[in-house]
Amino acid sequence: MENFAFYNPVKILFGKGQIANIAAEIPVDAKILVTYGGGSIKTNGVYEQVKAALTGRTFLEFGGIEANPHLETLLKAVELIRAEGINFLLAVGGGSVVDGTKFIAAAVPFDGDPWDILAKHAPIKAAIPFGAVLTLPATGSEMNTSSVVTKWETQEKLFFSSPLVFPKFSVLDPETTFSLPPRQVSNGIVDAFTHVMEQYLTYPVNAPLQDRMAESILQTLIEEGPKTLVDLRDYESRANVMWCATMALNGLIGVGVPQDWATHMIGHELTALHGLDHAQTLAIVLPNMLSIKRDRKREKLLQYAERVWGLVDGDEDARIDQAIQKTRDFFESVGVRTKLSDYGVGLDVIPLITDRFEKRGFVALGEHQDVTPKVVEQILALCA
Amino acid sequence: MENFAFYNPVKILFGKGQIANIAAEIPVDAKILVTYGGGSIKTNGVYEQVKAALTGRTFLEFGGIEANPHLETLLKAVELIRAEGINFLLAVGGGSVVDGTKFIAAAVPFDGDPWDILAKHAPIKAAIPFGAVLTLPATGSEMNTSSVVTKWETQEKLFFSSPLVFPKFSVLDPETTFSLPPRQVSNGIVDAFTHVMEQYLTYPVNAPLQDRMAESILQTLIEEGPKTLVDLRDYESRANVMWCATMALNGLIGVGVPQDWATHMIGHELTALHGLDHAQTLAIVLPNMLSIKRDRKREKLLQYAERVWGLVDGDEDARIDQAIQKTRDFFESVGVRTKLSDYGVGLDVIPLITDRFEKRGFVALGEHQDVTPKVVEQILALCA
Repeated sequence: MENFAFYNPVKILFGKGQIANIAAEIPVDAKILVTYGGGSIKTNGVYEQVKAALTGRTFLEFGGIEANPHLETLLKAVELIRAEGINFLLAVGGGSVVDGTKFIAAAVPFDGDPWDILAKHAPIKAAIPFGAVLTLPATGSEMNTSSVVTKWETQEKLFFSSPLVFPKFSVLDPETTFSLPPRQVSNGIVDAFTHVMEQYLTYPVNAPLQDRMAESILQTLIEEGPKTLVDLRDYESRANVMWCATMALNGLIGVGVPQDWATHMIGHELTALHGLDHAQTLAIVLPNMLSIKRDRKREKLLQYAERVWGLVDGDEDARIDQAIQKTRDFFESVGVRTKLSDYGVGLDVIPLITDRFEKRGFVALGEHQDVTPKVVEQILALCA
Repeated sequence: MENFAFYNPVKILFGKGQIANIAAEIPVDAKILVTYGGGSIKTNGVYEQVKAALTGRTFLEFGGIEANPHLETLLKAVELIRAEGINFLLAVGGGSVVDGTKFIAAAVPFDGDPWDILAKHAPIKAAIPFGAVLTLPATGSEMNTSSVVTKWETQEKLFFSSPLVFPKFSVLDPETTFSLPPRQVSNGIVDAFTHVMEQYLTYPVNAPLQDRMAESILQTLIEEGPKTLVDLRDYESRANVMWCATMALNGLIGVGVPQDWATHMIGHELTALHGLDHAQTLAIVLPNMLSIKRDRKREKLLQYAERVWGLVDGDEDARIDQAIQKTRDFFESVGVRTKLSDYGVGLDVIPLITDRFEKRGFVALGEHQDVTPKVVEQILALCA
C-alpha cells in the first residue's frame, strides 16, 4: 500500500425525510442562496420540503444550472451573491448543480478571472460554505472536493478540486430520486461504476481492503442497479444505489492505490464536443480502455473477472475478454449504449480530441502516464 | 437500510515516515502535552520521531497511561494541564492512550466530577483538541468518538462518546508496530474482527454495501492477520491490518444497520473483574454469543458462513456450527485463547457480572435488546 492522507468532513444525512433536518446544519444568521437546475425540484416536491425546512430563514434562489454546468451561467450567480451579500449556499439537485455550486462558492471570493480556477488551476484561498440536497445519485460530488465546469463559448470541460469546497453537509434522501427520468437513473449507475473502476482497475499494490471495498461497490451496483429501473419507486434499491454512488467517489476506496482517470478525461472531450451525457461517454470509452491497456492492467483484470463476474474457467485472455464484454453488457442492460455510432458520432471526432490534449499539454494519461494521444486514438477507434 | 447520519472529520496520515508531518497539523502557538503509556515509545524510536517533528514547539510529557486506562491516572493529567495551561494534546500509543487522552480532553474543561462523564453520561460541552500517533492497530479509537476508562478503585470499566473528542488527526505508521509484543498484535486482530462482527452479525436490513464492506474487513483480517505474526517486520501485512482496524470502527460499516455490542459489554466486565486483556474477553464471549443467539442471528450467520468462510455445503445448522467453530479457531490460530479456564477464571464470575448489569440498570443488551442477565448467564456458562 502506498502512503496516503485521507480527510473527509462532509456530514451525511441519509434517508427519507432528512431534508427536514437541514436548518440545524445552517448558521441561524446565514443569508442563503438556494441553487438548482432545470426546475424539476419545483414539480417533484423537493422544493417544497426545502422551503418548509428553511421556514423563518432568509433565502434567495438561483435556478437554471444546466447539465455539465456552464461557466457563463455560474458567473451570473457569482454576481448575484456579491450584490446581495449571500453567505451560505444550498445546492438542490444532481451532480451538476453540486459541481456548479462548488465553483460558485470558490469564485465569489476569488481575486481575478474565475475561469483561471479551472484553466490555470489557480489556487483558491477561500470559499463560501454550502450544503447539498442531492436528488440524483451518480457523481459523488456530494461528498468530495471536485467540480467539473464547461465553458460554453469554447466547448471546454475542465475540473478543479480544493478541500475548501467540501459540502458542509449533504442530504441523501432516496425518495427524491423517484421522479427522475430513467435515463438519468441509468446514467447514475454507469457513472458510479466507472468511478470505482478508475480507482480499482490499475495494478496491484497489495491493498486488499481497498480492492475488496471497490469490488463491494461494483457487486452492489450490478445487483441493485437494475432493480431501480424495474420498479421506479423501490426505496430500498434506490437507497443502496445512492449510497454506492457516494462511496464510489468520496476518497475512501482510492486511498493508498494508483488511480487511472483516463476514461474520464477522454469522456469529458466527447461531452464538450458532442453534448453526450457524461455517463454515455464513460460507457463508450471504459470497455475499450480496458481492451487497449489489457497488458498493463492484466492482474487486476483477472481479479475483476473472478471476483466481480465469477469468471474462473478458461484461459486468462478469454477471462479478460469476457470480463470486458460483461462490463459492456452491464452498461447496455441498464440502458446506456456503448458505441459512438449509437449517438451519431463519427470517427472524425478522434483528431479533434487528440489535438485538444496536445494543445492543453497533456503528454499522457492513466496510472502509468502512458495513454498518449496515439493511444487515445487507438481506444477511440475501437469505440466506433 | 435504516436512516442515518454520518460524520467523521478525522484526518488520517497513513504510512512510513508520516510522524514527520504532524507539526503542520498542530497550531503553531499550541502548548502541547504528549501523553503516552508504559514507555515503549522511548525505546522503539517513536518518541524520537515525535520529538524531532515537534522541534521548536513547546511540549510537556505525561507518561504512564496503562492498558484499560485508569481514571485515577488520567485525573493527574487533568491537574497538570490545568496548572500548565496546556491547549493541545498529542496521544502517542495504542488504543488505551488514545482513549485516555479523549477522557482527559473532555475532563479538563468539565464543570463537576469528571467521573460523571462516564458514570452518568453527563453531557460535555467542550474538549481540548488533540491528535494521535497510533502504535497499536486494534481499537479504532484513532478515528472515532468513543473512549473506555476504568475506575480502579471500584473496578468499573465504562465508556463515553462525543463528537467533541474526534482526534484532529491520526498518524498510522505501520513501522511503529514492528516492536510490539506478539500478544498485542494478536489482540489487535481479534479486537478489530470483533468490532466488525458487532456491527455485521445481527439481522438483515437490505444494506448490501455495508454487509460487503464488513465482510471485506473480516476477509482481509483472516488473510493478512496471520502474516503479521510470522514475519514481525512485514510492512505490507502490518499496513493492511492497521487500515482494517481503523475501518472496523470509524462508523462507516455501521451506518444504517442494527448493531449488537453485547459481547463488548460482557467482555468489559471480565476485564474489570479479572484483568483479562480486552481482546481475550472478546475471543471468549463472541463465539458463545453467536451460539446462544443463533436463532435471531440465523440469516446473517448463514451469510457469514458462506461469504467469509466459504461454507455452502451441508444443512443450515451444520454451516452455522462450522462458522462459529471457524471463528473460534481463527482467534486461537492468531494466539488468543477462547475459554475462561485458559485464563484461570471460574464460573463463579457469572453472578458477579449479572449482578453488576442489574445494579447498573441494564435490562438487556444486543440488537434486539433481549440479552437479559439470564441470557448473559447462559452465554458465560458456555465460556467455561
